Amino acid sequence: MQFDIKAVNGELTEALSHKIDFKTKPIGALGILEKTALKIGQIQQTLSPEIKKPAIVVVAGDHGVTEEGISPYPQEVTFQMVMNFLQGGAAINVFARQHDITLKIADAGVNYDFNGIEGLENVKVRETGTANFAKEMAMSVEECEQALANGSRLVEEAHQRGSNIVGFGEMGIGNTTAAAALLSVYGDHDPSLTVGKGTGLDKAGVQNKAKVIANAIELHGKPATGIETLATYGGLEIATIAGGMLKAAELGMIILVDGFIITSALMAAHSINPNVLDYCVFCHKSNEQGHRLMLEYFKAEPLLDLELRLGEGTGAALALPLVKSAVNFLNEMASFEDAGVSNK
Amino acid sequence: MQFDIKAVNGELTEALSHKIDFKTKPIGALGILEKTALKIGQIQQTLSPEIKKPAIVVVAGDHGVTEEGISPYPQEVTFQMVMNFLQGGAAINVFARQHDITLKIADAGVNYDFNGIEGLENVKVRETGTANFAKEMAMSVEECEQALANGSRLVEEAHQRGSNIVGFGEMGIGNTTAAAALLSVYGDHDPSLTVGKGTGLDKAGVQNKAKVIANAIELHGKPATGIETLATYGGLEIATIAGGMLKAAELGMIILVDGFIITSALMAAHSINPNVLDYCVFCHKSNEQGHRLMLEYFKAEPLLDLELRLGEGTGAALALPLVKSAVNFLNEMASFEDAGVSNK
Repeated sequence: MQFDIKAVNGELTEALSHKIDFKTKPIGALGILEKTALKIGQIQQTLSPEIKKPAIVVVAGDHGVTEEGISPYPQEVTFQMVMNFLQGGAAINVFARQHDITLKIADAGVNYDFNGIEGLENVKVRETGTANFAKEMAMSVEECEQALANGSRLVEEAHQRGSNIVGFGEMGIGNTTAAAALLSVYGDHDPSLTVGKGTGLDKAGVQNKAKVIANAIELHGKPATGIETLATYGGLEIATIAGGMLKAAELGMIILVDGFIITSALMAAHSINPNVLDYCVFCHKSNEQGHRLMLEYFKAEPLLDLELRLGEGTGAALALPLVKSAVNFLNEMASFEDAGVSNK
Repeated sequence: MQFDIKAVNGELTEALSHKIDFKTKPIGALGILEKTALKIGQIQQTLSPEIKKPAIVVVAGDHGVTEEGISPYPQEVTFQMVMNFLQGGAAINVFARQHDITLKIADAGVNYDFNGIEGLENVKVRETGTANFAKEMAMSVEECEQALANGSRLVEEAHQRGSNIVGFGEMGIGNTTAAAALLSVYGDHDPSLTVGKGTGLDKAGVQNKAKVIANAIELHGKPATGIETLATYGGLEIATIAGGMLKAAELGMIILVDGFIITSALMAAHSINPNVLDYCVFCHKSNEQGHRLMLEYFKAEPLLDLELRLGEGTGAALALPLVKSAVNFLNEMASFEDAGVSNK
């Protein structure tokens, strides 16, 4: 699958910076919001950007690597949480309602037969989730391509409904192990540095998780391409989300980047087409330890640092008001001249 | 002026923690939002807290200490920015509109005759602002008492309109110098550690600011009481805000604590009645260096760290959606039992 993503050009940078600097405030006094306003103006190529119909796509998938005892929760929690999403009782439902975000829930490979239940987008690539990457590739390259295409279609639909900004969420017991493996390979880090406690592992559990990943890397090595890496170590939800990100960038949409799992999907998307990064607003710094390495990899300065480690896209939803504030101050604040305020 | 502030008791702590822990998420996965939900439940003494009609009171005042060349902006910017607030063009107006916050603008001693202009609350204690604390007390203890009473009345009015949560903003060229002086005295720090660049001082300017404060402390010493310290080094807007905070706590309201100047007002309020702290939610970590020392003083973990240094209450306004999210997850998320999700 090819994605035609334009690099964001810097044409308007000077005009945007001038507009920001002459608002009635000391230079730089709105901190990271000023950088966010600049970035969004550049993405939309305008001095008066707009946020339209924010969407979050939550993708769920199961992980064969749970066989290795890398999560304190049983695999069935993935489908149970999908049901919770559909019933509106999860954290992401609460925050999406609060901020008027259109939520789409998709099944990329949950080990459960939802039987066509209403409200769930069926983008299953494998009925039972990924294979155990400790023993074999998590999915084939063809399956990975299929997941990318599915994610692409989900985002295209949101765009057709009028959205110009999209975030992603995930659910999948075991997926911090997949994300840590992707970070280890894409970022060239020892697994002991990329693993964390996930949903609540103890110290021995975290050590076991690192060992499972280290052994898998010994087995598979570093694949030749980004997409093979994703197929080898990733998750079906992660691949679907990577495809969604690439399509969002192709369509010129703002991408709200959530925490550890979602940033691993961005590493995959970035390995396929690096221009995707130009469209990203980093929403939060997760409390999962490997996320720091990912943020360094992208030289990202996220909006929030609330010690969240929930996933589901909650960090993206919680950061949306700040993204809107960045756009609002750029559009609505008076300049020194307009307001008759003396500048330095 | 006496404030009868109940210490928040821990009666509901266990029940609130239980409710938070059995939501469908790993324990602690909502990070600082969980602590915020607990705190608000304790303040309101309920397992189902509510946020009602948020208000922000922005108080302006001028500072005699500007004579010492401690700000790169001229004093007239204070009244010009008040006009900007009244016309809706400042950052705080933008963010208050975004979050449906009732904004009240008050003049506690701006060196300008507003001539009864509509929309401005006249709580002037001195026509020309404070005296230069490098030479004499900024205000008398009687004037300080008057400012406390004025702030108290402003908050009481918000409460009567149905608000149960209030933030404070400020405007006053020179007020980072007053705030740094208050921090130096209340917190017992050398002025070189409490001063920062304010609206944009260079290195020599920051050093001069520290020297002005150090000389003033040599002149006045450490006053015997909290209120005398406030009168000696503070600002009329700072004293008004301190009174507002004390009244808010007396009324059981949540206090949204903004940045450097507002936290100096909290130090003053806390020196008058330490129970005020029980009602505070710390909204952001300012980029003004002394704010870190204030947050340590109160062992506070603020919601935002966006490198803001604007004042006006902008940090409080920007944090409000997170405060609401804390309350919303507590009220709306399903428990493991409700949702039929397996717990560990």
